[in-house]
Formats: sequence, C-alpha cells, structure tokens
Amino acid sequence: MKIGLIGLGKMGYNVGLQMLEKKHEPAAFDVDPKVVETFKEAGGEGAASIEELVQKLEAPRVIWVMVPSGTVTDEVLDETAPLLDEGDILIEAGNSHYKKSMEHHQNMEARGLHFFDVGTSGGISGARHGACFMIGGNKEIFQKELEPLFDDLSVEKGYFHTGEGGSGHYLKMIHNGIEYGMMAAIGEGFELLEKSPFDYDYEGVAEVWNHGSVIRGWLMELMGGAFKKDANLDDIRGVMHSSGEGKWTVESALDYEAAAPVIALSLMMRYRSQETDTFTGKVVAALRHEFGGHDTEKQE
Amino acid sequence: MKIGLIGLGKMGYNVGLQMLEKKHEPAAFDVDPKVVETFKEAGGEGAASIEELVQKLEAPRVIWVMVPSGTVTDEVLDETAPLLDEGDILIEAGNSHYKKSMEHHQNMEARGLHFFDVGTSGGISGARHGACFMIGGNKEIFQKELEPLFDDLSVEKGYFHTGEGGSGHYLKMIHNGIEYGMMAAIGEGFELLEKSPFDYDYEGVAEVWNHGSVIRGWLMELMGGAFKKDANLDDIRGVMHSSGEGKWTVESALDYEAAAPVIALSLMMRYRSQETDTFTGKVVAALRHEFGGHDTEKQE
Repeated sequence: MKIGLIGLGKMGYNVGLQMLEKKHEPAAFDVDPKVVETFKEAGGEGAASIEELVQKLEAPRVIWVMVPSGTVTDEVLDETAPLLDEGDILIEAGNSHYKKSMEHHQNMEARGLHFFDVGTSGGISGARHGACFMIGGNKEIFQKELEPLFDDLSVEKGYFHTGEGGSGHYLKMIHNGIEYGMMAAIGEGFELLEKSPFDYDYEGVAEVWNHGSVIRGWLMELMGGAFKKDANLDDIRGVMHSSGEGKWTVESALDYEAAAPVIALSLMMRYRSQETDTFTGKVVAALRHEFGGHDTEKQE
Repeated sequence: MKIGLIGLGKMGYNVGLQMLEKKHEPAAFDVDPKVVETFKEAGGEGAASIEELVQKLEAPRVIWVMVPSGTVTDEVLDETAPLLDEGDILIEAGNSHYKKSMEHHQNMEARGLHFFDVGTSGGISGARHGACFMIGGNKEIFQKELEPLFDDLSVEKGYFHTGEGGSGHYLKMIHNGIEYGMMAAIGEGFELLEKSPFDYDYEGVAEVWNHGSVIRGWLMELMGGAFKKDANLDDIRGVMHSSGEGKWTVESALDYEAAAPVIALSLMMRYRSQETDTFTGKVVAALRHEFGGHDTEKQE
C-alpha cells in the first residue's frame, strides 16, 4: 500500500522504516531535505513538497502526518487538506490535544476527507518495531482502508479503534496521565526503601518485583535497566520534567469535574521537583516564626 | 527436603500443594484438624500438634510458618521456638509488620535459631504455582539451606534475598504501597474516560494498553479480565477496602520523614470511598453557607 508520510522526525522516520520493512511503500516529505535524502537512501521514496507528495499517491490517498503537535500540525493539515480529493484519508499520529483533534476532524470531514486522530505509545523503538496505536475516527473507513496498515505497524493486538474523532488522542492523553501516577508511586516506593534502615540492592528489587509480583510491568522492567546502569542513580538529579499530557489530563479532570487527585498530585510533585526552594516554604516558615517564634533558615 | 508447614489457610495450603508437586516433603499442622486431613488426602504428611510436627523433622529443621499476621503469628512462633534446637530454621512467610519481624528475628537469633521474614506476592495462584518471595535474614544460611526451596516455589527469578532481618517484610510492604498508588492512577484514568464525552469499550482499552504501551503490566491485564466479565463494572460499588500494608507504608513515610504524598493520598482516597457522606463535606458546606449564603443540601 502506497502511503504519504509527512514528518521524518524521530517518530516519523522510524515509522517510515517500519513501513518499508513491512512492504508498504512510503513516500515521505520533511521540511529538512537532508532527512528526506537519508530516507531515500534507506529505500523509501522522497518528495520535495507536500504538493509533490500528494501527486505521487493514488485515490483514495492515505497520508500519515507525524509532526510536532500544535502550530506545526495545524499548518501541515491546512496546507495538505486543499490538495486532497473527497474520500482521501488523513492520519494525524502526533501528540495533539484531543480538542484540537476534534476541530481537525470536523474541518476535514466538512471537506469530505476522512480524518483519524491516532495516539501512539511505545516510544521510538515502538515506532520502529511495533507500537501501540489508539485510533479515533470513522470506524467503517478504518476497517475498510486502514486496519491492515495498523495491524502491520503495531505490536500484536497493539491497535484499537477508540471511537469518534478525538477519542484516540484523548485516550493517549489519559494513558499518559495514568503513567504519571504509576511513575510517582514507583518513585515514592524506592524513596521509602532509600530512607529505610535497610540497605537494598535496587536492581535486585526491581528484578524480583518483575517476577511474579502484583506490580510487575514495563515501567518496573525499565527501572531494572536503569539500576543496572547506575545502582543508586547517583548520576542523575531528581528533577522530573513533563511534556504536557499530564497537565492536559488534569485540565480534563477540571473540565469534566472528575476527581483525579492522585494523578493531579503526581503532576504537582513534578513541578515541585523542578524548584530547589519554594515560596510556599518561605510563607510557612515565616508564619511559624510569626506565631510561634520558630527559627527560620536564613538565605545564604 | 522435609519441611514443617504450620498453617493451612488459603496461602499455606497452596504452598503445601506446590511443595508436594516439586518433590519436597511437607508435614503440616493447622489448628483445624479437618484441613490437615484434606492435606493428607492430597499426599502430604499431617501432624496433630506443633510438637508432633517438630518431632517429625530432622536437624537442621526447616519450618515454614504461614498464619495470619499479628497475634496468631506471635503465638505460633512463641510455641514453636522452645521446641527447636540451635541451628534450626524458621521461615515466617505471612504478612507481618517489619518491625514485628525485626523483633522476632532478634528473639530467635538469641535462641540460636535462624529466622527469615518472607514477603510473598502473587496471591493464591502464586502460592500454588510459583510466587514472588522477598526474603530477609542471614544470607549465608539462606544460600546454604534455603535457596533451592525458594527457587522451586517461586516463578523463575521470583525470589530475592533482601538483606537483614525485617527487610523482607519491609520490601513487601513497600511493594503494596506502590500497588496502592498504581491502582489509584489506573482507577482515576478510567474515571476520566467514563466522564469524558467519548464512549469507550473499556475491555478494548485495557487490552490495547497491554500491547506495546508504557503502562502495560499485570494490573492492566487484570483490568482487561474484569471488564471482560462486566463491561462497565455495573455490578460492583466503588468502595475500596484495604488490608493494612498501605497504611503501614504511610506510617513508615512518617517514621522516616519521607515525602510519599501520592501513596498517602491513594490510601486516603480508599478511606473516602468507604463513606457515603463525609463530615469534611458538611463542614465546608456549612462554611460556604455562613460566609456566602450558599445553599446547603439538606439531610433527607
């Protein structure tokens, strides 16, 4: 199956390689002509513009867009859509906010195009060797035109039609929110080992927890690998950054007035970890001093 | 290897069956003579008292105690220890508090006995077919006398010598604390799907999250099974009970002044789920009424 691929970043490039390996025929465009050349050397077809890319495809065209979320995705979709014909298919497999994807879905359907919002999990190795896809959009079209493609690009049983437009990216966002909470729980657990009177071999702990315990899973496997490289994580600071989906999850909890305090707190604790001191702390220390004469620690 | 087994409850009985299957020779005692009879019918040896059990074993004796934590464990250990000789081995594989286990460890070592506190994860099926064991106590004795036994009774790589006495049960407790946080995050994630504008097939969600996603693991597999039986969990109430280890984990966080807010909140939210109304809610509603004239909801 011939597929247009827009975006050869870390994710898109590896999806492209996987398409080649699985005997699809990707023709790719990227703003950086050098990556397009590299992709051609790897056996793919290249295009110098989105227009040229569209011309290389046959109706109904299938175009896989995997570019940074936000403005870039908007611009790419705005440029691509007018070049397409009714019945063509746009797969937006980036990390977009689901509300944006609902808008895109509406706009594209109004043009007679089929739009799918696809959440992708599994990281770069997933993109290359088989990922986990959550796919929102028209189910009949999905089954008729796209299911074999997703079956090929996912791990076994690793794709799911999630419902109407937007539901794919919403599900991916919630997946990441759960991930925040699970990671916080795992982090706190090891914190409680570190502060205990016992002297644990953390790699051994992660290993045994991965064999027969209730909390076994991929995150714990990753911890085993991390402790293997750095037994007490001496080389890294405990600063937890975030890429946005945890925040979106908490915003959704507010939108739908749903109680999700553990996920929300996981996010807030990431923010806390990014500060070496806090204004909260200053305020509380000042108050203890004011009412109880308790010492404050002076700024150095 | 001949082993004394005290306690034929759900866990102990199944460990006993596994011992039989793996060609060990368990002789078992339980306060309920009927279970001992059943165990004999299954091929095991029985004893009418702990004293008789001890007499059936050869030095160095190995006795596996798997009885309810707290008083029962204390009593069984108090009754058993005086019957043993120096160098005999006591394995306490229940769900005891690690501080208790540190005490037991000290008392038993003072008697010249070897004591091991063993945290067991994997539930009843783990006890029967291969569990995950976290083992605290003398490492040399463990390696010399017990390692083959634990290798047999665990899943592959599913046992780990955790360090000195108490460290096995501490690690099992922290495992459960992490479990609380992970389960809360998973629960809240599905809550946010349920309250969203989308209509998800939850079984399909759990299934796809188990294939290639970052949050794949045994808990998500269990959710797939739960949704398969009851697609929207209509048949059960969202009341979350707890058995104690989550509370112990939070108490340990207080003991060691370690920040573990996500696990602590997971526990508090379990308490919240057990109440249909809260005094907190009444107080806040009353205050909003007092200062802002906001309506309260009247008791029916």
